[in-house]
Amino acid sequence: MSASLSSCEAPASTDQPVPIVVDWRPFETTDTMTSAGFSENIVHVAWSDSRKTTFDPWWLRDNCLCTRCYLPLTREQIFEIVDAPSDLAPASVVISREAAPSVTSDTVSGPTLNVTWNDGHKSSYPAGWLRAHATDDVSRAERQAKNPRPFIWGAEHANKLRTFDYEHVMENNNELLAWLIALRASGLTLMKNVPTKADSLLGPANRISHIRETNFGRVFDVKSKPTPDSAAYTSVNLPPHTDLPTRELQPGFQFLHCLVNDAIGGESIFVDGFAIAQALRNEHPASFTLLTQTPLWSWNRDDRTDYRWSGPLIALDQNDDISEIRYANFLRGPVDAPTEKMPTLYYALRLFQSMTRDSRFRIERRLTPGDMWVFDNRRVMHARREFDPQSGARHLQGVYVDRDEINSKIRVLQRLLKTQN
Amino acid sequence: MSASLSSCEAPASTDQPVPIVVDWRPFETTDTMTSAGFSENIVHVAWSDSRKTTFDPWWLRDNCLCTRCYLPLTREQIFEIVDAPSDLAPASVVISREAAPSVTSDTVSGPTLNVTWNDGHKSSYPAGWLRAHATDDVSRAERQAKNPRPFIWGAEHANKLRTFDYEHVMENNNELLAWLIALRASGLTLMKNVPTKADSLLGPANRISHIRETNFGRVFDVKSKPTPDSAAYTSVNLPPHTDLPTRELQPGFQFLHCLVNDAIGGESIFVDGFAIAQALRNEHPASFTLLTQTPLWSWNRDDRTDYRWSGPLIALDQNDDISEIRYANFLRGPVDAPTEKMPTLYYALRLFQSMTRDSRFRIERRLTPGDMWVFDNRRVMHARREFDPQSGARHLQGVYVDRDEINSKIRVLQRLLKTQN
Repeated sequence: MSASLSSCEAPASTDQPVPIVVDWRPFETTDTMTSAGFSENIVHVAWSDSRKTTFDPWWLRDNCLCTRCYLPLTREQIFEIVDAPSDLAPASVVISREAAPSVTSDTVSGPTLNVTWNDGHKSSYPAGWLRAHATDDVSRAERQAKNPRPFIWGAEHANKLRTFDYEHVMENNNELLAWLIALRASGLTLMKNVPTKADSLLGPANRISHIRETNFGRVFDVKSKPTPDSAAYTSVNLPPHTDLPTRELQPGFQFLHCLVNDAIGGESIFVDGFAIAQALRNEHPASFTLLTQTPLWSWNRDDRTDYRWSGPLIALDQNDDISEIRYANFLRGPVDAPTEKMPTLYYALRLFQSMTRDSRFRIERRLTPGDMWVFDNRRVMHARREFDPQSGARHLQGVYVDRDEINSKIRVLQRLLKTQN
Repeated sequence: MSASLSSCEAPASTDQPVPIVVDWRPFETTDTMTSAGFSENIVHVAWSDSRKTTFDPWWLRDNCLCTRCYLPLTREQIFEIVDAPSDLAPASVVISREAAPSVTSDTVSGPTLNVTWNDGHKSSYPAGWLRAHATDDVSRAERQAKNPRPFIWGAEHANKLRTFDYEHVMENNNELLAWLIALRASGLTLMKNVPTKADSLLGPANRISHIRETNFGRVFDVKSKPTPDSAAYTSVNLPPHTDLPTRELQPGFQFLHCLVNDAIGGESIFVDGFAIAQALRNEHPASFTLLTQTPLWSWNRDDRTDYRWSGPLIALDQNDDISEIRYANFLRGPVDAPTEKMPTLYYALRLFQSMTRDSRFRIERRLTPGDMWVFDNRRVMHARREFDPQSGARHLQGVYVDRDEINSKIRVLQRLLKTQN
C-alpha cells in the first residue's frame, strides 16, 4: 500500500474496532471526535470542543493496544516499534461510534479511532485514551497543569497543616487518600492516637506499601545510645537536616512516632526546605542557581559502612520546579570545587544555613506519646533541640517509605474511589 | 586581628597542633609540605613534589577538624560555617612537624598545617588530609582520574567476565572484595556452587548489606504464575530490559539464583547497556543526545499498584559519562513529547532497540542450578528466551542490592584490608 493514500480511500473493513487490551485506568472523556484523517502521514483528529490533535505515525503504531501488540495476561506491550516497517504510514483513518471490544474485564467507552497501516496491521484507539495522551501543545499543557502543586508553608501556616486520626486512616480508604494527598501537598502531617506500642507505626506505613530499609534497619529506634553511629542517637542539638543525603536516593517520607517523651528538651522543629529554596530563588537568584548546580558531598561512615554521595543542595525537576533538598550539615564532606569558586559558593551556603535558622520558616512542636509526624524527607528538614537524657526517658521510632509508594497508592485509591482530586 | 597579617608574624602559640577528630580513613601521604603562607586570605601550601595548592579560607574554616567543631563521639561536624565571622581571614599559617593529637583512636601522621583565624580560633590539618582534599586544579584532576572506570564489554569479551565461588566469597574478605570490584567494573559476574536451597542468595547479598525491597517482595520467585502481575512471571520471551524503570531509583544490582531449570528454553541473555550507549554516542551522536535528554515514561500497574516514572533512556553523570540505562520496552508508556519531535525520537529509539538485538552485544547462557548471576540492573539489560512450562520446572530467585551498598562495602573492605585497588 502507498503511504499517500488519503482517508477517503479507506477500506470498509477498518470501520470495526479491533479487540484491545486496556489497563486499569478508564480514560473517560466527554469530548467526542468530530473528524479524523491524515496528511503527510500525520494523523489529525478534531474534537467537539474545537481542539485539534495531531499524532505522529510512529507514536500511534507504538501505542497500538491490540491483542497482537499487548499481552492480555499482563497488560504489557509485546510489540517492539523496531519491527514496524521503515516506511510506516497510515493507510486509512476512520472514526467508528462503537467501543473497541476489550479482552480484559475493564470497560472502554466509545467512540474509537481505527487506523489501518500500510502493512495491513489494524489499530483501534478509544477516544478517551487518545485525548488523555495527545501530544499537541494544548493537550500537553493541559496535562502539565494537572500535576499536583506543593503547598509551600512557613511559620504562619502552622494551623493549616492537617492532623489525622490513626483509627480513621487505618479503617477508611477515603481518609487514607485524604491523608496521602495532604502529605504530598504540604510534605508534613501529624497523626494522633497511634498506639504507644513498639512497631505501631508499621500499621499506617503498611497501609501504603513496604518499608525503605537502610543500614539503620527497617524500623529505627531514636534514643541516646552509648556508642552512637549518628548524631541522631545522641542527645545533642540536631540542626535542620534531611536524613541520609549520603544515599543516591534520599529516603522519601519519614514516619516519626513518639512512644515515650519524659525528658526535658528535645522539641521537634520542621522547616519547609521548598519555602527556603523559593525565597532564595526570589531574593538571591545567583546563590540559588549555584546551589542547584554544584554537587556537594555528604558522608556517613562508621566501622562497618562508608556511604558517600555528591549532589546539589537544591534539585530541580524537568520543569525547573524545586523537587528536592539534600542537606545535613553534620554529614557534609569537604566541598570538591575549584578554590576560586569557593567565595560565592560559601556565600550561598551561609545564606541557606542562616535561613534554616530563621523563625519565619520554623514550626516547633513537642512530641507527645501517640503522636506520629510524617514528612517528606526530601523536602522538609527536621531538627531536634538538645535534651537531658538524665531527666527522663525519650523513645521515638522511625521508618521510611519512598515517594514512589505514596504516589502509587494515591493513584490506586483514586481509581478505586473514582475521585480525581 | 587584621586579615592582612602575613605568616611571618604568626604568634608562637600556633606552632602546636590542636587536638582533632579524624574519621576512619588514614589519608596517608608521602608528600610533605615545604612552605605555607597566605595572601589576600588565600592559604598557599607548597609540597615536596613541587605541587602548589591553594585553600579558600571559608573552605578551610568549614573543614576545621578540632574537637569544638567536630563531635568526637560520632565524628560528625557540629560547627556551622554561618557562625564564622563575616570578615573571616587567617591570622597565621604555620607548618609544624608534629602530628595533630587525635581524640579518636585512629592515628594521624604528621606534619600538620596550623591555622589561627582572625577571631582566635585554631585549626590543625594533617598533611595527608589536606593533600587528599585539595581544591587546586591538579589535585582535583588527580582525584577525578582515580575514579573507577567501567569495563565495557560485548560478545567477544564473554571469557573475560569473572566467575566466583560461593564458599570463597562467603569465607574470605579478599575474595568478597575481588568479587565486588569485578562487579562494579563489568556490571556482570557469575557465582558458582550457590546451594540450591531457597533463600541461599541472601548469604552473599547480606555479606554486602541489606536488601532493596520492592512491591514484588524482598526475595522474588521467578516462575510462571497463573495470574501474573509482570511479564517476568509468564513463560514468554522477555526482550533485554532493566528491572523497575518505573521507580525513581531503579534497583542497583540484581542477584538471580537458579534453583531448578528443567524446562526447555528460557536461556538468559545479558547485554551491556553502556556498550550500546557508547556505540550510539560514537556512531549516531544526535540520537544519543536525544536519548539522554528526553524523559520517557515507564509504567507498571496491577490491581494494587500504579507505578510511573519519567526519565531518559540513557543518563549521564556530572562528568558526562554514561551512568545509567533505563529501558524495558514492555513497561514503556506513551511518549509525552511534542508531535513534531517524534520522528527523530523514534529514529533514536528504534536504533537503540535494534542494537539490543545485535549479536555483537549479547552474551547468552543457560542457567544451571547453583548458578547465580549478579548484574548492575542500571547498566546490564537482561533477557530471557521463551520456555515451555510443560517441559519441566524452572525456578529462579532474585533480590536487589543498591549501588550505594556495593560502594560502601568496597570502601570498608579496602580500609580493612589496606588495599587501594
